[in-house]
Amino acid sequence: MITFNTIQDGIEIRYKNQIIIKHTKDKPAFFLGFGTEIIESYRGNYQFDDYIESRIPLVSYKINQHQVIFFNQEIELTLDCIESDGRLIINFNSSQPFNRFWMRIFATKDEKIYGCGEQASYFNLRKRNFPLWTSEPGVGRDKKSLTTFYADLNDKAGGDYYTTYYPEPTFVSTRKYWLHVDSFAYADFNFKHDNFHELFFWETPRQLILNFKDNYLDLVTDLTDYTKRPPRLPEYLLDGMVIGVQGGLEQVLTYLKQSQAAGVKVSGIWAQDWAGHNYTSFGKRLYWNWKLNETIYPNLKEEIKKLGKENVAFLTYICPFLLENESLFNEAKSHNYLALTKTGEVYKEDFGEFYCGIVDLTNPKAFDWYKNVIKTNLIDLGIKGWMADFGEYLPVDCVLHNGIDAKLMHNEWPVLWAKCNYEAVKESNKLGEVFYFMRAGAHGSQHYATSLWAGDQSVNWETHDGIASVIPSALSTGIIGNPFTHSDIGGYTSLHGNIRTKELFDRWLEMNVFTSYMRTHEGNRPAQNFQFYNDDDTLQLMARMTSIRVDLKPYIHYLYDDAILKGYPVQRPLFMHYENDEKTYDLQYEYLFGPDIYIKPVVQPNQRAQELYLPQDEWIHLWSGESYQGGQTVTILCPIGYPPVFYRKDSNFAKLFEDITRKYHV
Amino acid sequence: MITFNTIQDGIEIRYKNQIIIKHTKDKPAFFLGFGTEIIESYRGNYQFDDYIESRIPLVSYKINQHQVIFFNQEIELTLDCIESDGRLIINFNSSQPFNRFWMRIFATKDEKIYGCGEQASYFNLRKRNFPLWTSEPGVGRDKKSLTTFYADLNDKAGGDYYTTYYPEPTFVSTRKYWLHVDSFAYADFNFKHDNFHELFFWETPRQLILNFKDNYLDLVTDLTDYTKRPPRLPEYLLDGMVIGVQGGLEQVLTYLKQSQAAGVKVSGIWAQDWAGHNYTSFGKRLYWNWKLNETIYPNLKEEIKKLGKENVAFLTYICPFLLENESLFNEAKSHNYLALTKTGEVYKEDFGEFYCGIVDLTNPKAFDWYKNVIKTNLIDLGIKGWMADFGEYLPVDCVLHNGIDAKLMHNEWPVLWAKCNYEAVKESNKLGEVFYFMRAGAHGSQHYATSLWAGDQSVNWETHDGIASVIPSALSTGIIGNPFTHSDIGGYTSLHGNIRTKELFDRWLEMNVFTSYMRTHEGNRPAQNFQFYNDDDTLQLMARMTSIRVDLKPYIHYLYDDAILKGYPVQRPLFMHYENDEKTYDLQYEYLFGPDIYIKPVVQPNQRAQELYLPQDEWIHLWSGESYQGGQTVTILCPIGYPPVFYRKDSNFAKLFEDITRKYHV
Repeated sequence: MITFNTIQDGIEIRYKNQIIIKHTKDKPAFFLGFGTEIIESYRGNYQFDDYIESRIPLVSYKINQHQVIFFNQEIELTLDCIESDGRLIINFNSSQPFNRFWMRIFATKDEKIYGCGEQASYFNLRKRNFPLWTSEPGVGRDKKSLTTFYADLNDKAGGDYYTTYYPEPTFVSTRKYWLHVDSFAYADFNFKHDNFHELFFWETPRQLILNFKDNYLDLVTDLTDYTKRPPRLPEYLLDGMVIGVQGGLEQVLTYLKQSQAAGVKVSGIWAQDWAGHNYTSFGKRLYWNWKLNETIYPNLKEEIKKLGKENVAFLTYICPFLLENESLFNEAKSHNYLALTKTGEVYKEDFGEFYCGIVDLTNPKAFDWYKNVIKTNLIDLGIKGWMADFGEYLPVDCVLHNGIDAKLMHNEWPVLWAKCNYEAVKESNKLGEVFYFMRAGAHGSQHYATSLWAGDQSVNWETHDGIASVIPSALSTGIIGNPFTHSDIGGYTSLHGNIRTKELFDRWLEMNVFTSYMRTHEGNRPAQNFQFYNDDDTLQLMARMTSIRVDLKPYIHYLYDDAILKGYPVQRPLFMHYENDEKTYDLQYEYLFGPDIYIKPVVQPNQRAQELYLPQDEWIHLWSGESYQGGQTVTILCPIGYPPVFYRKDSNFAKLFEDITRKYHV
Repeated sequence: MITFNTIQDGIEIRYKNQIIIKHTKDKPAFFLGFGTEIIESYRGNYQFDDYIESRIPLVSYKINQHQVIFFNQEIELTLDCIESDGRLIINFNSSQPFNRFWMRIFATKDEKIYGCGEQASYFNLRKRNFPLWTSEPGVGRDKKSLTTFYADLNDKAGGDYYTTYYPEPTFVSTRKYWLHVDSFAYADFNFKHDNFHELFFWETPRQLILNFKDNYLDLVTDLTDYTKRPPRLPEYLLDGMVIGVQGGLEQVLTYLKQSQAAGVKVSGIWAQDWAGHNYTSFGKRLYWNWKLNETIYPNLKEEIKKLGKENVAFLTYICPFLLENESLFNEAKSHNYLALTKTGEVYKEDFGEFYCGIVDLTNPKAFDWYKNVIKTNLIDLGIKGWMADFGEYLPVDCVLHNGIDAKLMHNEWPVLWAKCNYEAVKESNKLGEVFYFMRAGAHGSQHYATSLWAGDQSVNWETHDGIASVIPSALSTGIIGNPFTHSDIGGYTSLHGNIRTKELFDRWLEMNVFTSYMRTHEGNRPAQNFQFYNDDDTLQLMARMTSIRVDLKPYIHYLYDDAILKGYPVQRPLFMHYENDEKTYDLQYEYLFGPDIYIKPVVQPNQRAQELYLPQDEWIHLWSGESYQGGQTVTILCPIGYPPVFYRKDSNFAKLFEDITRKYHV
């Protein structure tokens, strides 16, 4: 199925008769060179100055059986092309240790590209370049926004359209292939060119893997056959929502009772402050020594059991950093389990008014030790879920146990962290019962992260970092094989004058009914921002939306099945089911919740009607029962509590949806 | 004097026994390649996206008599090295038409670099790169300033530290050489590296010219022997100041009388609106059809004669653009004297709510025609000076008479425009009597621009675009051979909330006594901003400062002599006279006004004392007569009207300065 076709002055490498690499003397497909980078980092934000010293086109080529060797004098890059498991594998080997590598993948002008990890600004990646480096995504993420301006000015933290917790050199093309490059080095994928995609790495990657399929559902299945898929999400996430509250046991139980009294279906309490608090100018933060704080959470193990009997799970928090001079830090330090500086001291990472050690996950003993911390301090306590935070902060100048340059480990770190959590759950025999959610990601998160969350959005309506941004985030991670994600209901970051309003919270709440699961967050400055427990009207809305959610359980159950068996994302771009409908390919603020529900969430304030494009099918408006013919743009009223949602008339679940319409109609 | 020294795996090209180019196989000195640029422009602001396709190190070399040929396989770059007029000349020839060229000039770690045209943010260019492309310099010029943020947001006009009207591939090194590269292509000079300066061009430059001298004064003389020097500034600039006023003849004469009555020594009226007005949302602008508006300036020729008898010159304005459908535009169009679009239409440049044609200065007939417009409409009217505005706007997509790509003509345009003015004055036999001032510049401005002005600063105290910025601007253009420059007293640009205050105007006024000449500007929005004619106190200050200026005439006369005979700039960096004083090399907000006067202008609001470093000499404070030993930092009181100025105790003009102290002391 792999063919080498000679063309004028060049060669095409084809797979399944499709051109993958097209090389001519004038338009070479490969370049090798040297570069010297300066990386400046500040609290998870990175700035790069990459000085390219040489970029040598490999103008010549020769064929040697299943190898194609591209070369320029003595400089050679060997491509070993094989088919394995019905996929194209190209192994790369360069004759000299260059540290810059460029590869051009054949492209067509109208081709579109999706994926590359979590992309919060643009779902279709064409016409832009995407540096791939895990980092804080930034506050504002738009150089034209004042939020970004002040975040840059005060904290170097404004970000840009491409900054992401979860970059991955993996994408899906509308030529109906998926492609992954096996490398964790800094990369930059440039989709600006008409006739090729240029993939740039700070090393010669080990391998390229690619496959064609007939449709997008099969593509994601094939990709996740390769990456492996995650375990099932726990059943309790289908029985209501998780409320994110804190302040000690008494306080969180009060919020629970208040919510239940208002009719909210609560199936979990997420109390991130189980280990205590740390107050900084950024806001209320956690005490990064991952042991139960018995002062504010007395008898928690017993209380968790009691809550379990009421079908309320208890969730907490952990990250791979340890507060300096605290007990876990001291224990890790005594065993040499922490990453070091170049001079052999414990590396202390600045988190803004406090410093932490970094558990060296490349040291098998440290890895096992931290896995045991999770088992002992979280799972044994009866905890059913947690935020496995961070993963994107590995400093490039630290020294690791495995001896590999931290610059090359940086992008891999999130998946090591995911794996540590995964093994802790697996070895406790709790996969499917206990889960965690992560923001940072890398190739392998598809399998090792039980779910994602979209991270710390600004508590506002700004396109690139507010409520809207979580939609392209979900679609981009979904199409490369992460079926389960969600976002903080209400957003998180309240800085530079952004304060969460009731309207924002309500809109986020009604949207997240139609995601993998529902969880709220108080945000970084709880006291200044809107909180549901201070507002009876929102509690009523939560009661309504969680009831709908629970009524949808059979359908969502089916989505979970498709996720773990076939890799289908819970939130899907329209074209995944309507590939012949050309209009669907550039839409990124509407999606399908499974095959049968369409939603275009309200992501602007003061909006009472939404204009939207329905794909070519027959659709029923969920709140009125009215029929709409797809393939056209319609305008739908959308008062709060009634986001623009439709179901497919021919759905196998039509009966279920009809009942919802009857029960919750306008 | 040129030697080729063989070193391990390489070669050094030396001149006067100093290394100029050091090449080894591993650290090659030359690279050739291809790139594709996307240039976006908006009203004189440019954005570049340069995609480098290849950068091939020329790793090998061979010597052939006075040639060194650097090569990589069949790619060859020939350096023809000759000595001419006691300078090193290297002629470049590449064997293939590459459009990207990189050259490394040998550098030492502690070397400092100055010049590259007008640089308003950083005088010492080391540790940064400087794209060389003539453009609007930007409003704010600092991505950390709100002014810049709003200018970017509203007009793509914020600029950055390197944006400049006047870029030039010419610099002076503290290794005591000057270097010029003969090319007007887009360039980027990168001074970030310890061991080399990397000079990048969008073509293979024709030539490099370089010379060493024993001191900085001789360096600038040698450089200006090469570039040629400007004519003398007119005598009237020594007899008082030029007031920038407008509103018609009656109005400007009223301002003149008001000023004279207050005791201000006025030797010129600059009435830029001689051709009439054009009101836009940016502010009050001019009517770009360069003919006298007789309605508002009746009998101007006679009035100019009358003013001449009172020793008051009359100055106006012109630029190389013609308002569409007006008489000059129509005349130029009928003769095919205007630049064209690619489809052969007249190119109309957007200037913000009005459009203009571009006089095609590459067409000798158009050039002569426009020269005659200057002769006839300005010089014959008796005008003694003008702002020769713009020069930096040549669009890269226009088609010119000489057939050269406008992208390659863009950086040359300012000097063509300067030459047009120069020849008009010269052919009228008025050099030294009539002059003009320009903001845009290029190699050759040293000779063809009778003087520069620093352009349109913001009317505020912001470092990179306010009052302070005109000091590094003057020092950087001065050190590469432009002796005469000045700035708008009070600044120009009032946008995004910046409004000129009395204090700013007063500080700018007192500073500009110690520059080539003094001229005020009303700014873009005269009515909203401070104007001297509305303030008796400032009129008194103008009287005081112009009296001092006139009393300094013998000294300034001497500075003018040194400027035209030796190329010494009127405003000089301290190290030009104190090269052994290491502390002086990084100072850029203080300067020497000639050899004997030191000034550190007040460039912050509410400042009543200035801390300053005096170079190693004996200094007398001009306002108190107190002696200070140099080589140390002192603090000096600086009420308005008494900027921190010192004279050299051993000056030949000490008597003159003593008289000033007696007459104007605190």
